[in-house]
Amino acid sequence: MLTKELMSIELIPGNTLITAGPEEGRALAIKIARLIIKATQPDATVRERLRPDYANDAGMLISIGHVVAIEFATIAAANNYWR
Amino acid sequence: MLTKELMSIELIPGNTLITAGPEEGRALAIKIARLIIKATQPDATVRERLRPDYANDAGMLISIGHVVAIEFATIAAANNYWR
Amino acid sequence: MLTKELMSIELIPGNTLITAGPEEGRALAIKIARLIIKATQPDATVRERLRPDYANDAGMLISIGHVVAIEFATIAAANNYWR
Amino acid sequence: MLTKELMSIELIPGNTLITAGPEEGRALAIKIARLIIKATQPDATVRERLRPDYANDAGMLISIGHVVAIEFATIAAANNYWR
Amino acid sequence: MLTKELMSIELIPGNTLITAGPEEGRALAIKIARLIIKATQPDATVRERLRPDYANDAGMLISIGHVVAIEFATIAAANNYWR
Amino acid sequence: MLTKELMSIELIPGNTLITAGPEEGRALAIKIARLIIKATQPDATVRERLRPDYANDAGMLISIGHVVAIEFATIAAANNYWR
Repeated sequence: MLTKELMSIELIPGNTLITAGPEEGRALAIKIARLIIKATQPDATVRERLRPDYANDAGMLISIGHVVAIEFATIAAANNYWR
Repeated sequence: MLTKELMSIELIPGNTLITAGPEEGRALAIKIARLIIKATQPDATVRERLRPDYANDAGMLISIGHVVAIEFATIAAANNYWR
Repeated sequence: MLTKELMSIELIPGNTLITAGPEEGRALAIKIARLIIKATQPDATVRERLRPDYANDAGMLISIGHVVAIEFATIAAANNYWR
Repeated sequence: MLTKELMSIELIPGNTLITAGPEEGRALAIKIARLIIKATQPDATVRERLRPDYANDAGMLISIGHVVAIEFATIAAANNYWR
Repeated sequence: MLTKELMSIELIPGNTLITAGPEEGRALAIKIARLIIKATQPDATVRERLRPDYANDAGMLISIGHVVAIEFATIAAANNYWR
Repeated sequence: MLTKELMSIELIPGNTLITAGPEEGRALAIKIARLIIKATQPDATVRERLRPDYANDAGMLISIGHVVAIEFATIAAANNYWR
């Protein structure tokens, strides 16, 4: 159903949302957020060129934090909040 | 109830949110996010023309990641987080 | 409690969130997102005039996808994810 | 604990999230979203002056739809999705 | 673990999310949203200076409504929707 | 699976989402939101330089409140809302 293109990019490392604890869950949230950017803009040169645009912009850093927060909410629920 | 126009566009490939695992769930999230864009702007020429606008813009790439994160949250819940 | 104005606009076609499957749920998400715009700007001429503003703007198309994703999350939960 | 100012503005008509059905729930979502604007900007003259700013702007109409979608998600959950 | 600075600002009045009803829950949502602003910008003079920026801007008023909607979703869930 | 770089930054103080109460949960939400900014822009000098950009901008202060609200929703759920 899904295009070959999408299936050839790794989107979830290890193909699981389960992590040892919140710290690792947070790192996974950052990682999967980045992989969507990579899937949308597969050219590493372009992504590298855009880096200063967001790394030096308060608004964009906040936006990245926003996306990570949403990814983390899903990962935390998947792990039953590591309770 | 819904217009014919909307019913003639495929919005959810295979008409299911159930996937084999998180990796495939993530690809589905990207796919259904794109299909909403397609439903809103059905003209492929226009969509192609807009591609450089978002693929080379850090803020828009983050926004796309944001939408995918929300779609993925729904798909992950539907699959009981593939636990 | 609510103003007559609001009660006279149809906001949820058929007054139910239950749909036959995800595909129809997705179409409903698009539909109810549009009906909020209609309730906020009831003048069809103005809405028509704004169409090129969003249909040709990558950022706005992404924003529309964002809203639909949130509406869909609610509809999917209402349908117990069509499991 | 809360300031008198906040307690004197009605924020939830009827002090309940329970509605007869989705249609009424949707109207409540619009209503409570508006009441937050009113609580933040209590001057009716200013709010009236801002009306053309958002009613004629595609991006702002989408943003309003976004907020209503989130309010509705809460109301729908409160009503167990009117199942 | 957390800095003394953060621990010295009251962030949740009464240290509870439980309220008598939705109306009071809504007021709490506004209150805690404001307290984050206060924690981020502790200078009251600056916050006062910024007031006209958001109180007279349709987009910012909508954004404030957006944040309150999210805080309210959490408070409503904490109170089991006052059912 | 995750890069060494990410694993060397502390992302969740104490590696737990469990807190004594809502007040401490709120402080944790602020803290983990900030740590994502730190992970994305590890240069303290740059982060310090960006501080006036967001601390004096109403829109950015609201955006920060938005992210904290989402982080708090996850922490609150993890703590079963401290009920």
